[in-house]
Amino acid sequence: MIILIFLLLFTITCESSPNPTIFEDINRHQEEYVQRLKEWVAIESDSSDPLKREEVIRMMHLAAERLKELNATVELVELGSQKLYGHDVPLPPVILAGIEKDPKKPTVCFYGHLDVQPAKFEDGWSTQPYNLTEKDGNLYGRGTSDDKGQVLAVLHAVETLQKHELPVNVKFVFEGMEEVGSNGLFTLVEQRNSTFFSNVDYIVVTDTLWLSNKPGITYGTRGNCYFFVEVQGARKDLHSGSFGGVVHEATGDLIFLLNTLVNSSGHILIPGIYDAVVPPSEKEVEFYKESEFNAAKIKRTFGIRNFTYSAKEEILMRRSCYPSLSIHGIEGAFSASGTKTVIPAKVTGKFSIRLVPNMEPSVVINQVTDYLKEKFAERKSPNHISIKCVIQAKPWLSDIDGPLYLAGKKAIKKVFNTEPEMFRIGGTIPIGSHFQEVTGKSAMFLGIGGPDDAPHGQNEKLSRYNFIEGTKLYAALLQELVSL
Amino acid sequence: MIILIFLLLFTITCESSPNPTIFEDINRHQEEYVQRLKEWVAIESDSSDPLKREEVIRMMHLAAERLKELNATVELVELGSQKLYGHDVPLPPVILAGIEKDPKKPTVCFYGHLDVQPAKFEDGWSTQPYNLTEKDGNLYGRGTSDDKGQVLAVLHAVETLQKHELPVNVKFVFEGMEEVGSNGLFTLVEQRNSTFFSNVDYIVVTDTLWLSNKPGITYGTRGNCYFFVEVQGARKDLHSGSFGGVVHEATGDLIFLLNTLVNSSGHILIPGIYDAVVPPSEKEVEFYKESEFNAAKIKRTFGIRNFTYSAKEEILMRRSCYPSLSIHGIEGAFSASGTKTVIPAKVTGKFSIRLVPNMEPSVVINQVTDYLKEKFAERKSPNHISIKCVIQAKPWLSDIDGPLYLAGKKAIKKVFNTEPEMFRIGGTIPIGSHFQEVTGKSAMFLGIGGPDDAPHGQNEKLSRYNFIEGTKLYAALLQELVSL
Repeated sequence: MIILIFLLLFTITCESSPNPTIFEDINRHQEEYVQRLKEWVAIESDSSDPLKREEVIRMMHLAAERLKELNATVELVELGSQKLYGHDVPLPPVILAGIEKDPKKPTVCFYGHLDVQPAKFEDGWSTQPYNLTEKDGNLYGRGTSDDKGQVLAVLHAVETLQKHELPVNVKFVFEGMEEVGSNGLFTLVEQRNSTFFSNVDYIVVTDTLWLSNKPGITYGTRGNCYFFVEVQGARKDLHSGSFGGVVHEATGDLIFLLNTLVNSSGHILIPGIYDAVVPPSEKEVEFYKESEFNAAKIKRTFGIRNFTYSAKEEILMRRSCYPSLSIHGIEGAFSASGTKTVIPAKVTGKFSIRLVPNMEPSVVINQVTDYLKEKFAERKSPNHISIKCVIQAKPWLSDIDGPLYLAGKKAIKKVFNTEPEMFRIGGTIPIGSHFQEVTGKSAMFLGIGGPDDAPHGQNEKLSRYNFIEGTKLYAALLQELVSL
Repeated sequence: MIILIFLLLFTITCESSPNPTIFEDINRHQEEYVQRLKEWVAIESDSSDPLKREEVIRMMHLAAERLKELNATVELVELGSQKLYGHDVPLPPVILAGIEKDPKKPTVCFYGHLDVQPAKFEDGWSTQPYNLTEKDGNLYGRGTSDDKGQVLAVLHAVETLQKHELPVNVKFVFEGMEEVGSNGLFTLVEQRNSTFFSNVDYIVVTDTLWLSNKPGITYGTRGNCYFFVEVQGARKDLHSGSFGGVVHEATGDLIFLLNTLVNSSGHILIPGIYDAVVPPSEKEVEFYKESEFNAAKIKRTFGIRNFTYSAKEEILMRRSCYPSLSIHGIEGAFSASGTKTVIPAKVTGKFSIRLVPNMEPSVVINQVTDYLKEKFAERKSPNHISIKCVIQAKPWLSDIDGPLYLAGKKAIKKVFNTEPEMFRIGGTIPIGSHFQEVTGKSAMFLGIGGPDDAPHGQNEKLSRYNFIEGTKLYAALLQELVSL
């Protein structure tokens, strides 16, 4: 009797998961996978901070070593340096790697990044951001979800398949400057289009999250134009006692300008900014209506009182299919705790506009610049302004009926026994649109992060479930791709 | 013939400077004085930074040692601690000291402070702010002018007079929390009114600058209400890609509120704020018209393009006899260099209003709070605001025809051979009004800092000339006071 039940259970397991050996292998190694993620998270590869640039470079070399352990051919492409605040800061190398066994088989190229957003415990983290900490099934740490955990899941999937049979050729493009605009990578893709990319059939980008607890596939991203608007008042900071009331204060001018950008419900006030926006198709509207996106849960997780829209599909579409403008902060004004009675000399407001098809960065830059200059002229201030766009990234939208998407859907069905949710995301991974444009190959965003991972916020996490099942997902995808 | 010319020169010297021995003594010791100022500047006694509190305390003990070397009786009054960001931070002790030889002689009490404003080299200093550096006759360093240099000038004057004869009794009140609101000092003055202050006849505050290169006496200061307006959006920082367009952003709300406070020419928009303002008297208007204040030089020094007023007297009165509002910055938003695509969860705007007679802090707080709440209601945001006034300091105005002011004028005449400029200042030294209110004694602000010393800005300095001649001025004042 006991033997019968055991056999029955075994049969059920086999049916719901057709790669028992590979999946069990992944299950067995999960502590090792978590340990490796801990090692990667411990490296403070914050690409926005010039003082941590060496850490980003160290991270790239560590990933290169990992790839060599998988018998990949690895090239670390040096991209020179960037001018940052008057200093030459070295750019981290880009990893171009490949495991190519059989030219007759298809070749899939994974893209991921190993740099992270800034994180400090004092920002309000519950754990040290660079010390991976597991709590209630979640792995907390900067980069767990965005994007170190997802890159490692790919590598663990490949490693596991190699023990049996790697069904396709695999290539890897890993960079260390994604969070600040992927310096140098765009040109590199163009330069290597006829060499490294010549035999690539499909491009899979890991750098994305699911929309709900149901697995999902991303077929579009928003672009981004990140602006610095600088107001220069006096040449030196002034004492507000000595000069308050008799000088045109730069901070007041900047606050005035920033206040002209967007209204309280998020509508952008820059003339013409919505002109090129193509609304989502009817089919897409259906995707969002059917989604299991749980607005109430997201509200609870992030402590959001109210979204600016109430219907689920409106929230989803507004944050991914329409532009938005966020004011991030001010550099140069007093920003510490406590009090300081200063009139800052030079202040730089930082805001960004997310772009959707068919908005063009060059057009947006002109619209913003003209508008702010016009508004500043109305202010009649003797201070000087300058407006710079420091990140320009195009939006991206893919054809979701191609073979790559079919394989993705089948892989999800295998691992999770469900249909995926299809959606666009509001974030910007400019390399997606660039890969597609330059190589002419189909690109797909298949991530394994959950909807509440907080990739740029405090307490970023990846659940252990998503990390391990996601590893299976990438393994399944590689198996599906061979049959296309 | 040569001997005759020499005698003639000697006679002229004696006439223009009636204390040749004392003044020469001061001249002879100037390198020692500069060296001591260097030691004091090296202590980072920034009272706004809880992490530097121990340095403030160290500074107070060093000053106490100096006073003991002058045979003063010294009490270091402990004031307990303050709650700061959830921590108990110790308050630095206040120094009450005295050199009292003859109860029949008048007693003058000097007030000064030994804490400084924040300063970092990266803020745009040309030299290290805590390393006193002499260049072109100026002593650069944080606290040189505000107020360590002026306190040291008093001590050096007393030390020099002691070698001959100290003409009056001298008392000292030195504190370490002036830059952040003089915590505990106000109560202490009340508590010691019938003891320490009972035999004090005159109060001299060192913490002030001259209006031009001509020596000046300050008879009024502005008060200050420093506000924190906090907007709380979500509980966590959000990614502007994932949430841009669907949440009510706290930073946008705060920018909106800050933009309602003051117009581009410095006019405060809060209803009723000007109601209690008493304009300067006709006599005062004459002071400012006659002043040698050099607006063009100040513009050059600080790189100010245009003042909001063109006439010299208008600039002087607007910055000292009328209220002003300055926006200092935002805490909680992105303020570093580079880019970060964050929607900050909680942001705190910091601004302050300088008060003049007869504005009352309690009234101003109500006006500001009511106005911001009303404006925020118009915004219809679901976010939460809270408004706090963290510094409340009254304005102060003195009777300029009393004996203390007469002595001050005579001392200036002796050292500089000129009449002083009489003026109010725009800054806030709340202890001035408090001393006068509690003790009923006459107070005068007699500083030795120059008009372009930049006390709260980058490259704060005190000229060597002002430091040394200022030491003579305090010596001359003590000699004049005995004859009143």
